[in-house]
Parts: sequence; structure tokens; C-alpha cells
Amino acid sequence: MLRYAVVGAGAVGCFYGIRLAAAGADVQFLLRHDVDVVRAMGLTLTSPEGDLHLAVPRIAASWAQLEPCDVLLVATKATANARVLAELAGQADRLLGVDGTVLLVQNGIGCEPAFAQAAGGRAVLGGLAFLCAQRRSPGVVAHLDFGALTLAAHAPGERPAGVTDRMRSVQADLALASTPALLDDDLVRARWRKLMWNVPFNPLSVILDASTAELMADPATVALVGRVMAEVAGAAAAEGRPLPDALVADLLAATARMAPYETSMKLDADAGRPLEVEVMLAEPLRRAERAGVAMPTVAALHDQLAFLDRRIAGRGVRSQSPPPRLCADAPDA
Amino acid sequence: MLRYAVVGAGAVGCFYGIRLAAAGADVQFLLRHDVDVVRAMGLTLTSPEGDLHLAVPRIAASWAQLEPCDVLLVATKATANARVLAELAGQADRLLGVDGTVLLVQNGIGCEPAFAQAAGGRAVLGGLAFLCAQRRSPGVVAHLDFGALTLAAHAPGERPAGVTDRMRSVQADLALASTPALLDDDLVRARWRKLMWNVPFNPLSVILDASTAELMADPATVALVGRVMAEVAGAAAAEGRPLPDALVADLLAATARMAPYETSMKLDADAGRPLEVEVMLAEPLRRAERAGVAMPTVAALHDQLAFLDRRIAGRGVRSQSPPPRLCADAPDA
Repeated sequence: MLRYAVVGAGAVGCFYGIRLAAAGADVQFLLRHDVDVVRAMGLTLTSPEGDLHLAVPRIAASWAQLEPCDVLLVATKATANARVLAELAGQADRLLGVDGTVLLVQNGIGCEPAFAQAAGGRAVLGGLAFLCAQRRSPGVVAHLDFGALTLAAHAPGERPAGVTDRMRSVQADLALASTPALLDDDLVRARWRKLMWNVPFNPLSVILDASTAELMADPATVALVGRVMAEVAGAAAAEGRPLPDALVADLLAATARMAPYETSMKLDADAGRPLEVEVMLAEPLRRAERAGVAMPTVAALHDQLAFLDRRIAGRGVRSQSPPPRLCADAPDA
Repeated sequence: MLRYAVVGAGAVGCFYGIRLAAAGADVQFLLRHDVDVVRAMGLTLTSPEGDLHLAVPRIAASWAQLEPCDVLLVATKATANARVLAELAGQADRLLGVDGTVLLVQNGIGCEPAFAQAAGGRAVLGGLAFLCAQRRSPGVVAHLDFGALTLAAHAPGERPAGVTDRMRSVQADLALASTPALLDDDLVRARWRKLMWNVPFNPLSVILDASTAELMADPATVALVGRVMAEVAGAAAAEGRPLPDALVADLLAATARMAPYETSMKLDADAGRPLEVEVMLAEPLRRAERAGVAMPTVAALHDQLAFLDRRIAGRGVRSQSPPPRLCADAPDA
């Protein structure tokens, strides 16, 4: 098996890292918090598919403490990418040697080129996690449902890169860890495909403070989700990545069947963390604009979410403004 | 002066009714609640322009108790129109005689034809209140700012009706009551003009739980408001009611100068009242569609607001659904 280092040991990073380590892979975990607790208590993954416990996980408390590996699995939030990219640029030669690989398991689109540059031109894989998991306490992650990881390779100019040997090797390791991996020959198409679900449901769950079940129970929000999906499909097609016509209906039907979920962005908002506005909405909007198609509904969600993100960050005006006056009707210009 | 009957004695109805009565007009107030308190304590309007008190207002506790008048000033929320129209249809002949008039002081667009029908073809004026006022307690309304009423006449087929004698008479009465009234020769254009402000700010204040000052302090929401205004202007123009090109910039600048306000829809939402989704968003969207223009951003606000309106009404799924599961990422189809 390959040697892994997990950067961003939250629910997603721990899920894949613990599974790989339990299957025998050499896995390091870079922790920013809870180093002492995890060294004492180990790492635990609870799961309906069987609990796993690493009594003595390999822990690094800083990038400098990481040792060379074959796959640097980056599962931080995209909102932390500026910091992660700076660290990676300084450590890539030491950590990744000649043919190490970055595996970027994040939401959104368009981050792989920056990681390829920071990694000195080494191979970058994108990972798309279809996973429900949650960090419960220091060193303890609960796996709730799903878990498959879609893998696709980045290539210069974002052209489809086909299926690489490194993708097959990671897939084989995940298979040993009882975790399915799907190989996609076109990273950008795979990212657009996942955006079809994330672009409507992540923002709306935050803006309307709603679970997926609530959004699917109201005809107005179902219609709105459908229009957002159609706009995303149009932008994907304009970038030369047409998605199957049936995908909108399939995703709506699958979501309606799901148990009610909090999206990752809803969890971020409720925890006061920064929202992934940039990679999930701003970058798709820029791509659509470059490709000459409009996404007015996505633009509305973007602007609402950018407002809420700044409010969450305490950069909004809420706390600084005087209490609002009450107005029975709107004044004129 | 004309004889008035105020239906919907909330902040808006009381503001104009108390001012007219204090100036000597015969004004009846139809109250659904607080009849005994108001009979005992009278009606009070506090205002930076001078407080007014009606010690013995003319109060009706039902439509049947109203006596004939020249102007039936309807200032209920548009969400109550089904009930109001049914009452009006049954009482119009008795209350309005040969040449009585309905003055509909409501938000939104497109309600005057139904009132004209319920009033048996009698004259209907639309009133657009540019007013900040709030009901403080039974019989007590606080005037905060502004107060001008724009008047325009409904005509069959919604054609511009010009300035009518009845409009001038109401304007003269309001002048005696120290309240400015503007006469507009085109009701539909006047309603589109007011929608330019209401369509962005009322929904966004509810959806984002924000005052106008907060919305104007963030570049994302300012941009969003501007795009909504542009869509409304496009629909107005498509209905043959072009609005001045400078209006978007003028309204944004005026709003930025305002003290922070809660919109009327925000007050409704916070009080758990139904939202004016139908007249403020659904009807403009239908008109735009008939005129062949798209308002995708307005449609997004409509759908979000329809969802929140049903949640407020307790018809949403929130209370019935199981608690949502937590999901670190979105599952696939």
C-alpha cells in the first residue's frame, strides 16, 4: 500500500485516513488541535459498517513534523487553502520526493491548478467525497452513511486526464480498506457533476436554515433547486462538460429519498466557520461568465451567502449598526 | 371634507385616518380587535410632527356597523384580501351609494380590478404609502418618518386613468390634515415604481434577517438589490410602463442615506403574520411572464419567501420532520 499523510484531520480526512490505516497502510495525521488527546486516546471511527480504532496513530503537530509520503491527502476546508498552499509550497520537495501525489478531497471547483503549482508540478488528484460523517469529539469521528470517493486526475489546461496509475493504486488501497472508489477520466466534469447538488443545497440550507428534507418538502424550493441545477448544467456544458439530461431529475429524486441531512455548509454556518463561497459559488460563476452563459439564480445565492459569510465572520455591520427603526412601509427615493 | 371609513386600522390605516379625523373629517374606524380599549382610551398618533389624539373616535366592530361613507380606505394587509373582498361585495351598495370610492392603500400590484368588481364597478383608487409607522399598543400608533401618499385611479384594462376629481378631493382633505398626497396619472406605473424598492428589500430583509442598513453595507447584497431592481424595471417596461433610467441608482442612494429600517414584510415575519408574497412577488412574476421577460432573480426570492411563508404559517415540514442527520458532505444520486 501507499504511504499517506492526511492534512485536515476532520470528519472527511479521518474517515479515509483511519480506514486506510486500519487496513494496514502507513498513514500520518496532521493535527492542528487535540494532539495530546489523540496521542493518549488514539483515533476512533464509529460506523454502521463497523467501528475502527487506531490505538497509536502516527500524529504530526506541524507540517515540519510530517515525514515523506506517497499521497498527501488534503481534506481541509477550501477556505483554508491559502495557508495550506503556502505550507505545501515550502514542504513539497521534502514530503513528496520525485513522484509523490497530492489528493485534494474538497468541495468546489478550480483549486487543483494552484495545488499543482504549490506541489512543484507533481501529480494532483481531485477527490470527491460522497460521505456523511461528523467529528464528535477530539479523535472521534462518526460515519453516518455513504463513503465512496470519486478520483480524477488534474492535467494542465484542465483537459481530461484519463485514468492514471496513481488513481488505480489509491483505488486499490481503498478497496483493501472496504471503501469504494470510482475513477473518473475527467476531473472538471466530475467537479461540475458534484456542484449540481452542492450549489443548490449547500447555500439554501444555510440561507433558509433548512435540512434537505425541508427543502424537498416544499414545491417552491424544489422548483428553485431545479432551476439552480439547470443553470449549473448549462455552465458545465458551456465549459465542454455536458452532463446527462436526466441528472437533475435523478438528483432530486435521490435527495427526496434521503433521510434529512444537514449539508457541510450548514454545519460550517452553525459552527461559525467560514463558508466555502469562493470554490462552490464564486468560481463556478466566473467560469460560466467566461464561457458566456448566465447563472442569475446562482448569482443570487452567491450574494446572499457572501452577506451571511461576512456576518458570520463578524465583519458584517450587524453588531456595529444602531438598532433598526421599525417601518410599516418602505420610503421612496 | 369627504366622509371616510378605514378598514384595517393598523399603523397605516390609523396614520391617515387619525390625521384626517383630527383635521375635521368624518372618519369611521373598523376594528377587529381592541374595540373596548379604543372606545375607552381613544386613538393616539405619536409623531415627530406633533401628537394627535381622538378622544371619541367613531368605531365599528364589524362591516355591518359601518355607516355610509364617500371613501372606504382599505389598509389591510393584502394577505387578507379574500376576506375583505367578500365583505365589500356584500356591503358596497349600502356603504358606498352611487359614487362612493374605494381607496386601496396596500403594497404590491394587481389588486384593484378585484376591488372594482367587489365594489360593483364603483371607482377604485390605489394608494401607495411612503410611510414609516408602527402600532405600539391598542389604539396607539407611532409615526416615525415620511408619510406621503401617492394616489392613482384604476381604470378597466389597467389603462392610465389620468387625474380624477376624486383624487383631487382626497388630496385636498389630506392637505388639510398636513399630509402630502401626490397624484399619479398611471396607477400601474406607480405600483411598478414602488415595487422597484419593495421587491428587493422586503424579501431580502426576511430571508437574510437584515435591516436595510445591513443590506446596503455589503457589496454583495447591494449588487443583488441592483439586479432585482433592474429586473423589475424590465418587467415594468415590458408592460408599457418604462421607469426612469436613473431610478435604480436613486433608490439605492436614498436607501443608503436612510436610518436602518425594518421593512413591512420583516415586521410581518417577526410577528408570525402571513407574508405578502402573492401581491409583491407572484403577481409581478406572472405579469413579467405574460409580457415575455424573465425575472430569474425575483423568482429565486419568490421561492425562498414562499418557503419561509409556509414555515411561518406552520404548514412547513420543520415541526413534523425528524431531526436532521449531520452530513459532512452531500451524497450523490
